[in-house]
Amino acid sequence: MSKGLIVQKYGGSSVANPERIKEVAKRVASYKKDGYDLVVVVSALGDTTDELIELADKISQNPPEREMDMLMATGEQISCALLAMAIEELGHDAISFTGGQVGIITDSTHTKARIVRIDAKRIVNALKEDKVVIVAGFQGVTKNEDITTLGRGGSDLTAVALTETLNAKMCEIYTDVEGIFTSDPRIDRKAKKIESITYDEMLEMASLGAQVMQARSIEVAKKFNIPIHVRSSFSTKEGTMIVKESKKMEGVFVRGVTLNNKEAKLTICNVPDKPGIAARIFEDISKVGVNVDMIVQNVSHTRQTDISFTVPRTDLPKALAMTKKVAKQIKAGDVIKDSAIARVSIVGIGMKSHPGIAAKMFKVLAENKINIEMISTSEISISCIVKQKLGRLAVKALDKKFNLIKR
Amino acid sequence: MSKGLIVQKYGGSSVANPERIKEVAKRVASYKKDGYDLVVVVSALGDTTDELIELADKISQNPPEREMDMLMATGEQISCALLAMAIEELGHDAISFTGGQVGIITDSTHTKARIVRIDAKRIVNALKEDKVVIVAGFQGVTKNEDITTLGRGGSDLTAVALTETLNAKMCEIYTDVEGIFTSDPRIDRKAKKIESITYDEMLEMASLGAQVMQARSIEVAKKFNIPIHVRSSFSTKEGTMIVKESKKMEGVFVRGVTLNNKEAKLTICNVPDKPGIAARIFEDISKVGVNVDMIVQNVSHTRQTDISFTVPRTDLPKALAMTKKVAKQIKAGDVIKDSAIARVSIVGIGMKSHPGIAAKMFKVLAENKINIEMISTSEISISCIVKQKLGRLAVKALDKKFNLIKR
Repeated sequence: MSKGLIVQKYGGSSVANPERIKEVAKRVASYKKDGYDLVVVVSALGDTTDELIELADKISQNPPEREMDMLMATGEQISCALLAMAIEELGHDAISFTGGQVGIITDSTHTKARIVRIDAKRIVNALKEDKVVIVAGFQGVTKNEDITTLGRGGSDLTAVALTETLNAKMCEIYTDVEGIFTSDPRIDRKAKKIESITYDEMLEMASLGAQVMQARSIEVAKKFNIPIHVRSSFSTKEGTMIVKESKKMEGVFVRGVTLNNKEAKLTICNVPDKPGIAARIFEDISKVGVNVDMIVQNVSHTRQTDISFTVPRTDLPKALAMTKKVAKQIKAGDVIKDSAIARVSIVGIGMKSHPGIAAKMFKVLAENKINIEMISTSEISISCIVKQKLGRLAVKALDKKFNLIKR
Repeated sequence: MSKGLIVQKYGGSSVANPERIKEVAKRVASYKKDGYDLVVVVSALGDTTDELIELADKISQNPPEREMDMLMATGEQISCALLAMAIEELGHDAISFTGGQVGIITDSTHTKARIVRIDAKRIVNALKEDKVVIVAGFQGVTKNEDITTLGRGGSDLTAVALTETLNAKMCEIYTDVEGIFTSDPRIDRKAKKIESITYDEMLEMASLGAQVMQARSIEVAKKFNIPIHVRSSFSTKEGTMIVKESKKMEGVFVRGVTLNNKEAKLTICNVPDKPGIAARIFEDISKVGVNVDMIVQNVSHTRQTDISFTVPRTDLPKALAMTKKVAKQIKAGDVIKDSAIARVSIVGIGMKSHPGIAAKMFKVLAENKINIEMISTSEISISCIVKQKLGRLAVKALDKKFNLIKR
C-alpha cells in the first residue's frame, strides 16, 4: 500500500554529472523503498543550458524563439533519460517522459510559454505499473505539437503543476542550498535559514531577486495551496517549508532581505505633464516585449516632469531604443540610462501592520551613507534602488537591523 | 514557380560545429535561390552521439533501450534547430521538426525501429508556406508517442523515406567523402570514384562494409526507384549516382571491393549431424537478438560436423554465451571464437554471368599468401574471411587485379 505520491524536482546542480545523477537516483530509491510513489522532475545537467545557448549564439544573434525552444528542450530530455537509467540500475522500474509526452499543453509564447492544461494520463498509468516517473522539466508543447519552454526556472513550475494535477501530497524542490535564507548567504554569511515562510512572502522574495525558486511556480502553489519543501540534494537536512500560513510568525515583521543586480534604470526628462502620456510610454515599451518594473514619476510643479523606471538589464538595448523613440514623439527631453544600480528590498507579511518599518529601513541606509534613488512599496515589501556597488553593504546592514542574522 | 522538391541529408561531419552548420545553410540557401523546394534531414553534430553514449555508459552498462532512444534523439534535435537558425539568418524562412512532429511513425523496436508510416502533413504545409523544412534524422515515434531511433545510419533512411513520401525528384546524401569508391580510399589511395552504381551493387557493398550509406535506406530507395546522389558537403563536385541501372556497365564485372573488420567468427565443433540441428542453433541465437551473417557447415564424412558462422563483434559476448549453452544442449563439442578476422568481398552485377571471377579472386589471395578461412557467395558478391591483419593487403591486391584503381 502506497504512502502517497510525492513530486520531487531536482535542479541543474543536483544533476550536474553522472555521479550526481546516481546520488539523486539513490535518494529516489530510498523514498520508493519507504513506500512512496514518485514523480521526479529534472532540470538540464549543470552547464548544458549555457552550452546550448553558446552554440545558438555562434550561429545567430537573433535566433527564432521557436527554434531556441526546440534546442533548449533537449537539455532536460537528456537528464530525464539518464536519471531513468540510473534508477533502473538500482533495480526500480522507471520511465522518462518529455513535457509533450506527459501532455503538458502550453500556449505558443515560445521561450516563456504558459501551461494551459495537463493531460497526465500517461503518468497515472505508469504509476499504476509501479514505475518511478521521470519528467523533463521546463517544457511543454502547443496544441500543434511545437515544443515550448516555460522560461527561466520553469522546471519548478512543471513540478508544482504536476503536484496539483496528480493531487500529490507534497512537492519537494531540491537545490544546492539548504533552503530559503533571510538573505543570500553568499552576501551575508550570517544569514539564517527560514523554517517556514508563506507563499506571499516567498513570492515577494522571488520576484525581488531571491533565486531559489521561480516566482510563477509559487503563484501556482499559492493558488492551489500546495505545500512545498525547498531543500538541498546534497544533504538530508530539513529545508524550508513554503505554506499558506507560517507558524512562529508572531512578532516577526521582516522575513528577509533581497538584492537584485539585474535591473537597469531609465529616466525620461522633461516629459510634458498631460493625461495619457504615461500610458502612451509604457504601452509602447510593452510592445517590444519588455517588462517594466518600478516606475517613479516626480511630482510636477511645472508643466513638465521626469519619469524613471527599471527594466531587466538584458532588455536594456530594446527598452532604450523604444524609449528614445517615444520621448521624441511626445516631445520630451533626454533619456538617461543607468545600469549600475541594485534593488534592495525587505519582505514580510507582518510589516504592513507595523508602522515605522519603512522609516527604519531608510534610516539604516542613511546611517550607512547609502543614497536612495527610487522607492517602491507593495503589500509586503519595500524596495529601494541604490548604487550597485553599495548593494551588498545595504543587505548586511538591513539583516542586522531587522534581526535576521545568526547570533 | 518551383523547380521541384529535393531532399538533402547531411551527416554528422557535415554539421560538426557552428561553422560547418553555416556552410550547410549557405548550400541550402543557394538551392533555394535556384528555385528548389527543400527538405533537409540532419544527423547529430559530429561527436554528440558518442558523448551521449559516454554519459549513459557512466550510469549503466545495460541501460533500457527506450531510455537510450530518449537520450540519443536529442542529438538530431539540436542540429536541426541550429540549422534552422542558420538558414533564417541568411534570410530564408525555415522550420525544424523532430521525427515525431513530422509523423514518422515506427514500430516499438527501440534502438533499431522500423518506419511503419509517415504522415507528412506538417511538412507539406510548411513547404506551401515557402519554408525550408529541417527534419531531425534517425528518429521517429511509436503510436504511443514513445521516441524511437532507426539504428546506425538511420538519418539516411529518414531522407530516403521522406523522398518517397513527398514524391521529391531527388535525394542527396551529403557526407565527408566525394562519393562511392571502388574500395575504401583510406585503405587503397588509388581507389576510384564510381560515377554511377546500381541499388543492388550499392546494397551489397553497404552490407559488406562500405560505410557511406546505410543498407536499409538503399533497400527502400531500390523498392521505390528513388535516385540518390551521394556527394561531399565539403565541395561542389558531382558524387556518385545510385540508380536502377547503371550506364557504362558493359564490360565491368567487379564494381568494388569492401572490407569489414567488425565481425567475429564462432565455430561449434563436433555437432551431431542430424536434421534440424542447424535450425535449432540459429533459432536460439536469434532469440538473443544477434544477427548471424555468414554460415559455413563442413561436409560431413562422419556423424559429426563443424559449423562456423560470423556475428557482429559487438554481439560476440551475447552470441558466445548462447552458443555455448546450445552446444551443451545438443551434445556438441567445444565452441571456438575468433575476433581477429576480416571479411573481404568483391561486388558487381556483371560478375555472375562471367565464370571464373571467383577463381580469380581466390588466386589473387593465394598469390599474396592470404589464407581463406570461410567463403560465401551471393547473387552479386563473393566474400572471404581472412586474418584481420591481412585484410588491407587483400583489398589492394583485389583492386589491382580487377582494374579498380586509377591509372
